[in-house]
Amino acid sequence: MASIKTSLAAIALAATCATAMASEGTKVVYHVNEGVQQASRAIGNIRNHLNADPKAKIVVVTHGPGIDFLLEGAENMAGAKFTGAIAELAGRGVEFRVCNNTLVSRKINKDQVIQEAKVVPSGVAEVANLQAKDKFVYLRP
Amino acid sequence: MASIKTSLAAIALAATCATAMASEGTKVVYHVNEGVQQASRAIGNIRNHLNADPKAKIVVVTHGPGIDFLLEGAENMAGAKFTGAIAELAGRGVEFRVCNNTLVSRKINKDQVIQEAKVVPSGVAEVANLQAKDKFVYLRP
Amino acid sequence: MASIKTSLAAIALAATCATAMASEGTKVVYHVNEGVQQASRAIGNIRNHLNADPKAKIVVVTHGPGIDFLLEGAENMAGAKFTGAIAELAGRGVEFRVCNNTLVSRKINKDQVIQEAKVVPSGVAEVANLQAKDKFVYLRP
Repeated sequence: MASIKTSLAAIALAATCATAMASEGTKVVYHVNEGVQQASRAIGNIRNHLNADPKAKIVVVTHGPGIDFLLEGAENMAGAKFTGAIAELAGRGVEFRVCNNTLVSRKINKDQVIQEAKVVPSGVAEVANLQAKDKFVYLRP
Repeated sequence: MASIKTSLAAIALAATCATAMASEGTKVVYHVNEGVQQASRAIGNIRNHLNADPKAKIVVVTHGPGIDFLLEGAENMAGAKFTGAIAELAGRGVEFRVCNNTLVSRKINKDQVIQEAKVVPSGVAEVANLQAKDKFVYLRP
Repeated sequence: MASIKTSLAAIALAATCATAMASEGTKVVYHVNEGVQQASRAIGNIRNHLNADPKAKIVVVTHGPGIDFLLEGAENMAGAKFTGAIAELAGRGVEFRVCNNTLVSRKINKDQVIQEAKVVPSGVAEVANLQAKDKFVYLRP
């Protein structure tokens, strides 16, 4: 009886482990900390990524100049608004996160962040924690 | 009997897990998406990497301007051909992959890609999947 | 008896696996291989990171021009010494590592490396091994 119980305990532990190893859909954090040029590149990359792997879960974490394309009225190098591309990607499940430390140090009000993006306390801690705690892999576009 | 069977099942699961944790040789994806300058840097980095850890398995995934050094006749900033260095690294087990999305969008024929490199559907999906599915770690040179 | 032994073996393996999955404090390698500008950015990022997650274990691995801020007398773009910021971060548990291959190729004597930093054989192998063997996650500032 004791043997069955210990076996079951072992199975439970092993199964937890096996589950953690099983793939759901690849989870990827895109790390964006440069300006709108990197952001434009990231948008093209993410489109291609989702076309190749529609089940991929992509979270874009921004800080420093990387947040610029997620501010109201932001434009790319060619003078076109980012709004359409962001809405399109958000519709495909992509999440956008903006670093609050950057907002504070650059004196940018939270109201200026577009509604598709979520403000997080620290961009770098977010990039690390998504990997360490939520099994995301890293990609810097 | 049932107890032995469940024990064996538990061992099998646990062993799978232990195997996944065991180290073979470190597997590293080098992510190259800038131009020939980053590629030159990557080549030097990979040489040093293999000298320090000869069992490392290195895959170079390229997209955007990052593919340039893997096209026929490509030259570095000093006007020297990349061919020799690539053949040398390929001989040490390094693999080179080129993004097909980049070839299509830049209207480059597959024939122009050197034979040491393999074309993959999407560079970014490749970078993510090597990490998520094949236990590669990431390095952006 | 055999059954109990195999159960225990399975539990031991499963427990090892469960332990490997448990989180201690997030371990993060900051990969620095550009010049003092990236280094300044990294310092600000790490401060914010530790404020958001004081238990994070951060190791900064440098090679190429990335080592410059860890040399005696190094100054940032504004002409201020890096010494104070490095001592502050070291006091918060941050470790700094310098690539010996870079020292050799740039003919820089080890004596020029500040005492807070440790010289490692290869910066890139260090970045990969921290991830592959010691469960660090990656961040390129």
